[in-house]
Amino acid sequence: MELASKKISDLVVGDRVDCFFIVKRVDLKTTNSNDKKYLDFIFGDKTGEISGKLWEVPAAMETMFKESDLVKARGTVTSFMNSNQFKIDRIRLSSEEDGVDPEDFVETAPLKNTFMLDEIRKFILSIRDEDIRRVVEAAVEEKVDKIMYYPAAKRNHHAIRSGLLYHVLTMLKLGQQIAGIYTTVNTDLLYAGIILHDLEKMNEMESSELGIVSEYTIEGNLLGHISLGVKNVDRICDRLGTPDEKRMLLEHMILSHHYEPEYGSPVKPMFLEAELLHHIDMIDARVFDFNLAVRDLEPGTLSESIFSLDRRRIYNPKL
Amino acid sequence: MELASKKISDLVVGDRVDCFFIVKRVDLKTTNSNDKKYLDFIFGDKTGEISGKLWEVPAAMETMFKESDLVKARGTVTSFMNSNQFKIDRIRLSSEEDGVDPEDFVETAPLKNTFMLDEIRKFILSIRDEDIRRVVEAAVEEKVDKIMYYPAAKRNHHAIRSGLLYHVLTMLKLGQQIAGIYTTVNTDLLYAGIILHDLEKMNEMESSELGIVSEYTIEGNLLGHISLGVKNVDRICDRLGTPDEKRMLLEHMILSHHYEPEYGSPVKPMFLEAELLHHIDMIDARVFDFNLAVRDLEPGTLSESIFSLDRRRIYNPKL
Amino acid sequence: MELASKKISDLVVGDRVDCFFIVKRVDLKTTNSNDKKYLDFIFGDKTGEISGKLWEVPAAMETMFKESDLVKARGTVTSFMNSNQFKIDRIRLSSEEDGVDPEDFVETAPLKNTFMLDEIRKFILSIRDEDIRRVVEAAVEEKVDKIMYYPAAKRNHHAIRSGLLYHVLTMLKLGQQIAGIYTTVNTDLLYAGIILHDLEKMNEMESSELGIVSEYTIEGNLLGHISLGVKNVDRICDRLGTPDEKRMLLEHMILSHHYEPEYGSPVKPMFLEAELLHHIDMIDARVFDFNLAVRDLEPGTLSESIFSLDRRRIYNPKL
Amino acid sequence: MELASKKISDLVVGDRVDCFFIVKRVDLKTTNSNDKKYLDFIFGDKTGEISGKLWEVPAAMETMFKESDLVKARGTVTSFMNSNQFKIDRIRLSSEEDGVDPEDFVETAPLKNTFMLDEIRKFILSIRDEDIRRVVEAAVEEKVDKIMYYPAAKRNHHAIRSGLLYHVLTMLKLGQQIAGIYTTVNTDLLYAGIILHDLEKMNEMESSELGIVSEYTIEGNLLGHISLGVKNVDRICDRLGTPDEKRMLLEHMILSHHYEPEYGSPVKPMFLEAELLHHIDMIDARVFDFNLAVRDLEPGTLSESIFSLDRRRIYNPKL
Amino acid sequence: MELASKKISDLVVGDRVDCFFIVKRVDLKTTNSNDKKYLDFIFGDKTGEISGKLWEVPAAMETMFKESDLVKARGTVTSFMNSNQFKIDRIRLSSEEDGVDPEDFVETAPLKNTFMLDEIRKFILSIRDEDIRRVVEAAVEEKVDKIMYYPAAKRNHHAIRSGLLYHVLTMLKLGQQIAGIYTTVNTDLLYAGIILHDLEKMNEMESSELGIVSEYTIEGNLLGHISLGVKNVDRICDRLGTPDEKRMLLEHMILSHHYEPEYGSPVKPMFLEAELLHHIDMIDARVFDFNLAVRDLEPGTLSESIFSLDRRRIYNPKL
Amino acid sequence: MELASKKISDLVVGDRVDCFFIVKRVDLKTTNSNDKKYLDFIFGDKTGEISGKLWEVPAAMETMFKESDLVKARGTVTSFMNSNQFKIDRIRLSSEEDGVDPEDFVETAPLKNTFMLDEIRKFILSIRDEDIRRVVEAAVEEKVDKIMYYPAAKRNHHAIRSGLLYHVLTMLKLGQQIAGIYTTVNTDLLYAGIILHDLEKMNEMESSELGIVSEYTIEGNLLGHISLGVKNVDRICDRLGTPDEKRMLLEHMILSHHYEPEYGSPVKPMFLEAELLHHIDMIDARVFDFNLAVRDLEPGTLSESIFSLDRRRIYNPKL
Repeated sequence: MELASKKISDLVVGDRVDCFFIVKRVDLKTTNSNDKKYLDFIFGDKTGEISGKLWEVPAAMETMFKESDLVKARGTVTSFMNSNQFKIDRIRLSSEEDGVDPEDFVETAPLKNTFMLDEIRKFILSIRDEDIRRVVEAAVEEKVDKIMYYPAAKRNHHAIRSGLLYHVLTMLKLGQQIAGIYTTVNTDLLYAGIILHDLEKMNEMESSELGIVSEYTIEGNLLGHISLGVKNVDRICDRLGTPDEKRMLLEHMILSHHYEPEYGSPVKPMFLEAELLHHIDMIDARVFDFNLAVRDLEPGTLSESIFSLDRRRIYNPKL
Repeated sequence: MELASKKISDLVVGDRVDCFFIVKRVDLKTTNSNDKKYLDFIFGDKTGEISGKLWEVPAAMETMFKESDLVKARGTVTSFMNSNQFKIDRIRLSSEEDGVDPEDFVETAPLKNTFMLDEIRKFILSIRDEDIRRVVEAAVEEKVDKIMYYPAAKRNHHAIRSGLLYHVLTMLKLGQQIAGIYTTVNTDLLYAGIILHDLEKMNEMESSELGIVSEYTIEGNLLGHISLGVKNVDRICDRLGTPDEKRMLLEHMILSHHYEPEYGSPVKPMFLEAELLHHIDMIDARVFDFNLAVRDLEPGTLSESIFSLDRRRIYNPKL
Repeated sequence: MELASKKISDLVVGDRVDCFFIVKRVDLKTTNSNDKKYLDFIFGDKTGEISGKLWEVPAAMETMFKESDLVKARGTVTSFMNSNQFKIDRIRLSSEEDGVDPEDFVETAPLKNTFMLDEIRKFILSIRDEDIRRVVEAAVEEKVDKIMYYPAAKRNHHAIRSGLLYHVLTMLKLGQQIAGIYTTVNTDLLYAGIILHDLEKMNEMESSELGIVSEYTIEGNLLGHISLGVKNVDRICDRLGTPDEKRMLLEHMILSHHYEPEYGSPVKPMFLEAELLHHIDMIDARVFDFNLAVRDLEPGTLSESIFSLDRRRIYNPKL
Repeated sequence: MELASKKISDLVVGDRVDCFFIVKRVDLKTTNSNDKKYLDFIFGDKTGEISGKLWEVPAAMETMFKESDLVKARGTVTSFMNSNQFKIDRIRLSSEEDGVDPEDFVETAPLKNTFMLDEIRKFILSIRDEDIRRVVEAAVEEKVDKIMYYPAAKRNHHAIRSGLLYHVLTMLKLGQQIAGIYTTVNTDLLYAGIILHDLEKMNEMESSELGIVSEYTIEGNLLGHISLGVKNVDRICDRLGTPDEKRMLLEHMILSHHYEPEYGSPVKPMFLEAELLHHIDMIDARVFDFNLAVRDLEPGTLSESIFSLDRRRIYNPKL
Repeated sequence: MELASKKISDLVVGDRVDCFFIVKRVDLKTTNSNDKKYLDFIFGDKTGEISGKLWEVPAAMETMFKESDLVKARGTVTSFMNSNQFKIDRIRLSSEEDGVDPEDFVETAPLKNTFMLDEIRKFILSIRDEDIRRVVEAAVEEKVDKIMYYPAAKRNHHAIRSGLLYHVLTMLKLGQQIAGIYTTVNTDLLYAGIILHDLEKMNEMESSELGIVSEYTIEGNLLGHISLGVKNVDRICDRLGTPDEKRMLLEHMILSHHYEPEYGSPVKPMFLEAELLHHIDMIDARVFDFNLAVRDLEPGTLSESIFSLDRRRIYNPKL
Repeated sequence: MELASKKISDLVVGDRVDCFFIVKRVDLKTTNSNDKKYLDFIFGDKTGEISGKLWEVPAAMETMFKESDLVKARGTVTSFMNSNQFKIDRIRLSSEEDGVDPEDFVETAPLKNTFMLDEIRKFILSIRDEDIRRVVEAAVEEKVDKIMYYPAAKRNHHAIRSGLLYHVLTMLKLGQQIAGIYTTVNTDLLYAGIILHDLEKMNEMESSELGIVSEYTIEGNLLGHISLGVKNVDRICDRLGTPDEKRMLLEHMILSHHYEPEYGSPVKPMFLEAELLHHIDMIDARVFDFNLAVRDLEPGTLSESIFSLDRRRIYNPKL
């Protein structure tokens, strides 16, 4: 007999349920006290994450699961170290007959990826300078498959399926509004900077098609997405014969968009659009993280200290 | 015979001219070599500043001039330490017959102050929460005379006549656009924060009606505009009986808007609108300073290192 | 049959005892391995703290205990992760028949609170400037109930019952001696600064009447005791019509007493008494923490690294 | 005919006077415009310093003057770069017939050096631990000549004749009072630390008998007074056979008394008396510098930014 | 029957083996769940470290083992928290009949200590300045017993038996090569600095003859090896009558060799050989740590973040 | 009649001489007092720099001189602000008849540039990995003209003619010696890193053929030589089809060679050869700057504070 199913954010201690989860991490471990093997999971769905434990592991199951798998698990919700934990009784890989779609179990951008790509392409078409437009176009189109599902980060802001598209599109809208207020802004440069600035995150991190990042790549560690981005724009400019001044401006925007050296920018922004790119990036990241921080927070209460927000505790106002 | 007149930014070494200037600073000094007294001026007009020297000072003139006076000066442009200098032959206070308006000789916000105040009042009226609206209204109306001409700073961004109004209005427009993109933003809080955040600069600095700041006040030095702002909102809330939660939110926004402790904020932003207030403030300040930096800069060249922009040199792109 | 009773600092592994403890924290948890509920306590008495575990929890007991309760517990002392732990066999709330006073089980200032208050009032009376004296008087008298038991901190220095009174009184004595040596010190300002500087800790933190702080308040998090203190003095000055100069001096002392921006002071001390206030505060805090650090330390040995003392290890000299 | 004489702090632009000054610095220079040699002085007396220029230099006078000389100069007070300057008409070395004492022209500690030394010796005698007392005694007595006139610094706090004696004695008084309040303080250690902490400044800096420091010594630059102090105590302890524990405690106090590594302390204080030594040193230095800062400051006004006080501007309260 | 024996780096989960280990740490603890005592070990051999647990502890065994003991243990390799763990079935102290040498179970410098000492003595003999040579000779010879086995650190670089000798000798070779390239280098100073710089680590840390450091000494904590080094050279120079200049140069090199104040150097290098000493020390430490980091690292993969290398992850190139 | 000629380092106040100088900078200025134009020079020769003034400027001379010109000047040495100054009586451009070679008047590397290039080419040939060798070869040969005369910096270390060649060659020798001591070093990587690391300084700065840098390029400001270097290696690798791993390793070495983010390295070294490249670069720069600092320094004296050496004062030992 099937038990009730729940979303992770609805689980409470004592629940006994049948749930579909995405495996976000899995390790085979051995207990300290009696040398028994067990499987240590992190499960996720659209609403959050929970740790899961399978204490009796049949040999056949030891290597059955891997990251980004969709599984069906039966078990009980317990409490460990002030967090919920899922004690697994049974678990199996989801199959087609289940009629469930893995994408329904990962957090995804609130707009459809095809729609977002179309919108971004419209912004590209609005770039009047042909040299700049062609560079941006080439940079997007050469990654058009991966961009459909890539998140913008491993953790923190926009670490969701199609998060990169969503981050870029929202920044473009913001850039458009800012340029409406400050008339000296060159939107060709600004839009180009926004679209190019994080594209090489697709080579800096390994993501499954569910938008789950398992690891940074070697190249991501040794060079970083900023240097990768400069190199890639350079290669495209070589191919397209982009004039030197424009190439330099585009590369400077990528190079300086983290602003502080200790966050990876070897130079600080030296023209207006580079400066704005940095602030627009910050705003979009911070709005995402603040919204996430208060999502499950009672009005009138404070969150725990949040690492990605400078270890601040966030308050949900009673208004 | 009247000589030609020029704006400061048009003066070149060798010019001999009759000009109206605003006195931005004046000191009576004695030369080193021969014990003669001379007057050492900084003159300004809408286009910039120039140092001026009157080498022969009649006794009657020793105390004739003071800051914010409009004067008429005849003299020659020389070069000293790589900067232009104005060697004065004759100088007198401007009188009504000259038919010139001091306000035409100071840099002023590009919008009329009465128009800006009206626009800000419209934003105030759009605040739906009556408690918050009344606090903001009271804070603005009690300073409605001084706000017409106050700059937003002694130096750097918005250090121009009516600069404070202009800074606030531009930030409000920006806030409006941002709230159009991020639907979780509470515009009541955000508009209130924007309008209140710098109002006590009017007690932190002494400004003439031409928007020229001579000095920070004692209170400005010992308490700073952030603490003055919190105290003032507190006093208004006491008077209006504003509920505690709302009072706390407004005060937190003022307190946290500089973000970093070393820039005067003892707490960092702890809710979304406080965070956005900081970024909007930064953007408006930086756009102002970047525009100023490239105003007289040949495309394709770099400025000197600019103190208010983290000592960066700014580039004027050739596009 | 009653077992022997011991103070926490006297407990050694293997002891089986009956003890009275104050509950400093209690959580209902579930074990990892077998889903059983247990109660996880931190117990305290005058001599220290110990972790306590009740492994079998009758349903009726699940919510029986809360912070600041006095309980009687029987159990055995074990060792876990190099610390002592109290394994509870039985536990109940203390009742009147036990004839024990909760205050005997919390660390308390070494002087009686009524005596300390009297002493502080004498210092207030010694303030010759009537304006300043009336502000200080009002600030103390409006909190005269809570000040009897409030600690001066949640952790670290003076985190004991009536710790705030004790901190203030000791600082006053120190201030008096310093003023005896340096004749330019204005004791009116210095005593006022000492008495006012931490009063708003009573609104920054929630404390039970036993002087145990459970949490910082929302206001404490969003504004901090320094801004709360400035606001409160401002309100009192409004009421009493205190002259502006004196109000400003008092507020500056509160604002600057942590000295460093990153510790919450937006301005640094700008007159002598503000500077001295900071050093006197530091000395009194540090003496407390050093004494605490060596209390149970063998002469000739080093403590562990202590967070509140800049992570230093403290040495107990062999003299 | 003799002109009027004035103290430096009383000189105003236009004065024509005959004054005695101490030479604090003198350089022979050549003018830019006409290759003439001139003498560039800094003069001092008990009330301050003033720059002096002798524009016509007879060959015989080129090397006549050196630091710490007492001179008699006739001249006029002019203004240069917002400071007063003394234009010299005539100048000569002071001779015995003048009947003036150089010591009357340098700032000196407010107590007599012989009295201060006696007082310090009484503190030494009050040290009960014989080992410690003998080390301190030896360290003072071996420098008993130089300590009579040495300042405690080249600039800033206690940079006056006998400033070191005065600094030490005031700190001892302060230490005595603090120990009266905190009963766990070991006064043997504290007094020893206070007396020993800066003694090697007498080898770190070169001072004339007027207490004017011309330069740091090579050893002062390469090792610093803290390491010199440790070495010297070590040498004395070797000679006296001081037990290891006590030697270590004394050396640790010297080593840690600047607290921060970037101010020269490789270790932070690790016992109470070392911690207190640091704070007492800070208080005595800061009181000196605050008093100096307000000496010539109108009540209700702010000083310029003062380097030795963390670049703060200091306020002189109107009370 | 004897089981197979393995080196620690070869152990895999599931192995059941008989091994000799060095005890690097041992604690008697009590289990949380059932109050049973157990022994918690860290075992080591030439190839690495592993945690060991003896769950049933006969009373006689409770205090049988101590650090640096060689033991024979039978047990099974399990996994706990992603690390291997050794579950002990039997354990005993190694005896002579085992015919095993403790030194074969600790990591040791790759060169024989007697050889290294000989080489260092040759470098000493090559110092032409007799004063300097005699100081260095005395400093080495007075510690000639301990230097044979001391490591250069408790953790990190050269934390192996005779690691100090090895560190010094390798640095000397490096210094020799550098002096061959830069002809202005004074090898007398450089060799002296290299040999003297870390000698007092032998008083800063307690090491067994196996080169295992259990703890820093009290003196090591309160004074540090840099100050200890300066004092010791000072004492030797007193005895030998070394000229002041040379004594100062040697002491300055010791004092400045960590370069940064926050790493314990109160002064920065002020002559060439002191500067080089710092860099040579850095290179030798870093090469050691990089080699260690890649020792067990698959080419083409990254290590975990390594504390002693500024928390960097290290890459093992595929070449 | 010809006057005596001297090198700049030999000039003393009062000298009247005929000298050849290189113009390192020249500005046409106007005097403050009498509006006369004058030429303000910085002259240089192999031995140092001196400021020069031509007070009477014939119209024809106003634009006659530019940087890197060789001139012959007659004049007198005066003193201004404690520095020597050259008051020019006559000045003209040097002509062929003078028979002097401009290269004899600029500081130049101590080895011939053709010899250094040959030596570097030998190191390139010793790279066994063909892919790496070809990249390095291509990078050097494409700049083989400019590398003959480029300095390695605008100021500080190796700011001399052919300084870049000299810096690279000395580093290669050092790398060779280090690799002889540490056997795990891959010399292919290390030599490649050394040769490539600074090559793009030739695009970051504008240098005349005399090795005098007038300015950083726009690209040098906006991208910096590190990013330019990565881009250039990337372009060469594209052309040569260099395998990805090798390309990444070379680029990482360039990217990380300044080590600290605030000095321009967005990543820190992550393998041994990258780490060593940083230290070798540091040593070669520091030896250069220390040698320069003591060049004109009396033994037993200290230099002024030197900006490029962390503002240290450098000591010249008396040995």
